[in-house]
Amino acid sequence: MPVQPRTTQGVLELLPSNQIAFQQMLDTIRHGFERFGFLPIETPVFELVDVLLTKSGGETEKQVYFVQSTGAIEQGKKPELALRFDLTVPLARYVAEHEAKLNFPFRRYQIQRVYRGERAQKGRYREFYQCDIDVIGKDKLSIAYDSELPAVIYGIFTELAFGKFTICINNRKLLRGLMETLQIEQQTEVLHEVDRLRKAGREKVEVLVAAICGPDKAKQLLDVLTQDWRAATAALEGTDNPTLREGIAELRRVYDGTRALGVPESFIQVDLSIVRGLDYYTGTVYETFLDEHPEYGSICSGGRYENLAGLYTKSKLPGVGISIGVTRLLAAMLENQGEIKRSVAQVIVLNFDPQLATEYAKLATELRAAGLNVEVYGEDDKPGKQFKYADRTGIPIAIVIGSQEHAEGMVTLQDLRKHEDNKTKVPRAEVVSRLRALL
Amino acid sequence: MPVQPRTTQGVLELLPSNQIAFQQMLDTIRHGFERFGFLPIETPVFELVDVLLTKSGGETEKQVYFVQSTGAIEQGKKPELALRFDLTVPLARYVAEHEAKLNFPFRRYQIQRVYRGERAQKGRYREFYQCDIDVIGKDKLSIAYDSELPAVIYGIFTELAFGKFTICINNRKLLRGLMETLQIEQQTEVLHEVDRLRKAGREKVEVLVAAICGPDKAKQLLDVLTQDWRAATAALEGTDNPTLREGIAELRRVYDGTRALGVPESFIQVDLSIVRGLDYYTGTVYETFLDEHPEYGSICSGGRYENLAGLYTKSKLPGVGISIGVTRLLAAMLENQGEIKRSVAQVIVLNFDPQLATEYAKLATELRAAGLNVEVYGEDDKPGKQFKYADRTGIPIAIVIGSQEHAEGMVTLQDLRKHEDNKTKVPRAEVVSRLRALL
Repeated sequence: MPVQPRTTQGVLELLPSNQIAFQQMLDTIRHGFERFGFLPIETPVFELVDVLLTKSGGETEKQVYFVQSTGAIEQGKKPELALRFDLTVPLARYVAEHEAKLNFPFRRYQIQRVYRGERAQKGRYREFYQCDIDVIGKDKLSIAYDSELPAVIYGIFTELAFGKFTICINNRKLLRGLMETLQIEQQTEVLHEVDRLRKAGREKVEVLVAAICGPDKAKQLLDVLTQDWRAATAALEGTDNPTLREGIAELRRVYDGTRALGVPESFIQVDLSIVRGLDYYTGTVYETFLDEHPEYGSICSGGRYENLAGLYTKSKLPGVGISIGVTRLLAAMLENQGEIKRSVAQVIVLNFDPQLATEYAKLATELRAAGLNVEVYGEDDKPGKQFKYADRTGIPIAIVIGSQEHAEGMVTLQDLRKHEDNKTKVPRAEVVSRLRALL
Repeated sequence: MPVQPRTTQGVLELLPSNQIAFQQMLDTIRHGFERFGFLPIETPVFELVDVLLTKSGGETEKQVYFVQSTGAIEQGKKPELALRFDLTVPLARYVAEHEAKLNFPFRRYQIQRVYRGERAQKGRYREFYQCDIDVIGKDKLSIAYDSELPAVIYGIFTELAFGKFTICINNRKLLRGLMETLQIEQQTEVLHEVDRLRKAGREKVEVLVAAICGPDKAKQLLDVLTQDWRAATAALEGTDNPTLREGIAELRRVYDGTRALGVPESFIQVDLSIVRGLDYYTGTVYETFLDEHPEYGSICSGGRYENLAGLYTKSKLPGVGISIGVTRLLAAMLENQGEIKRSVAQVIVLNFDPQLATEYAKLATELRAAGLNVEVYGEDDKPGKQFKYADRTGIPIAIVIGSQEHAEGMVTLQDLRKHEDNKTKVPRAEVVSRLRALL
């Protein structure tokens, strides 16, 4: 009895046509990163446990996959290795380990899968891709880099063509300073509620914030956060709280810098209620939403942090980064477009006469030399079966050379995307140019 | 005290410049596969243990990395998941699982990392890349596909430019039939010795084979295997052993087919002593050697097998495949070239006057729109430090706009690859064309 072929739940596996579409998406992202000179790195799928899990246990550790060889299990050893659960910890380890050999500001991109020991449920992945960019400074990092990331994202999402999107920015110093001036002490609890503003709406959030710090402060805070940012920051300009002043200045500078880098006004929006990660971020924060699909939540988020790798090095390494949730985008793509019919081969040379195998091989070789992706049908099957294969695989053009065509020095090009008037007989010598015209 | 940032031994991690070079290598391989219409797939890094380890334990199982979440370890459960140790078992599982949705012959490529729980030692990797292509038929698969794989490999290795290489082919039916006609019964043991012929030489191997089946048979066998293949097969043509006859016919057909697909005579060689994998392959076998670096062994190997996925499905799925040992190629590349200085950015806009930040941003945006990879230096550092950064990162061209250039409507292009005569002052409006000329 054969073993049932299957994978565990929540992993990423696609049929070839979807894989092609996904790969195009990853290529677009990669080229978008490279357009701004970000450098690629890849890290091993597993890290040493003591390196990966330096922070005190908590939620993350529960979701970690540990890795052990057979021998180690037999000896009852504790696992030495664990799969990465994000790309941030490996980046911190990488930068600290290779610090002397890297050039700062270090601009890296990384596109790899990450792993979470989640219980299987719809929409929860045990394995998914992350596409991250970060700029890491040594001792300092100019705010100029905070303007760059939205420009990178703008370029990529424009090309991905998921429709109109909005990159929202905010600044945590502004939020912190504002709460200080309002004498709100329970900052973490309040931010936790503010973070839900987009989903839950002002009314609900104000009730929750009021429960923490009283109705007056809640109203004052939410009045500012839901106001137009220019008006809000103009009103706060005279503040004597230095954190708030710095936050306002940074936010303006990032906004203006992003506009100077070509991001249109309608694509970038200051949203004073964006929080993004309670502990980690300290300055600029980003979230990105598809205007027509708010239900996907933020598909691209990040921000500025004070020190990347304090756990591994005494060097101070401030940074700013952003991460594209590409597995979620893939889900969006599949949901919108359904099964995608897309092939790698642009042309298939059919096998209408096995005597002509050498002729088919030579033609295919010529077409490949001309830069086309070409497949030759190798089986001696009936024409109907060959056409069915080509059509199902999504190959746009079939080339037919039967004995008659061969005798005449002709070939028939058949456009499989059309159902009528789809055949053209062309001289053998003109195949390349005629194909180019069709494709 | 910070944790020492480090990885376990035998994993794959590169500095950015080497990562760029490696990525170019992987891109070349991928495009080479796509040129022949192979379709991409990716499978999850882990498979269910009962699916992955259906074969009886043995060496492979000892080298497997098992994966467990924290919860499962606490409950003392046996691991459910294990990391893939090659791409063949995942392919078999994939094809069996998705059989109804795939089009046969199914042509797939797969470029992913694989994992082996090896003890750490030089040249042994716990994590390495494999780049595989296979054509899988349903019930049958024409020998025509066996000719195609060397053509794919020829295209890729020509482009990778590792110097002259030789693709060696043989046929296991020929070996089997030959041993049958010589009445050699200990086929596996004899093939095990024959497999070493390239390294150990005829004399040693003949002694070892003689110890198994006697000196007469050993001599007869090795006389054939070390002879020119055309002479050898011509002499064997009259045999009444059907397996031998079939092997000869297939070998000739694969050789001629490969030549018809444009592989020059000097790059393809029939070598009757190639064995390649004792159990798995049943017909055509391939090995590939770098002529100038025989010490790397076969850098690309594979062959024809009878049935891919008998463990998972009752369907008969014959196939032919080949795998590029890309981690070994990377090692070869690094050994030959040493540290590589290669960047993603083609141009860096330096920050000579922070007042001109908007001008720098606009110029960079223009250049990016023109298809160039452009970085803007964001720190307000001294010029020397900025040039040092650009040079170390390997960026070829720096653009300098100081207040004087700006007033004149000019920019200075500095070619960092040169030490003298490397500055050109050009009108701002001509930057794109002048840069294109320089790059």
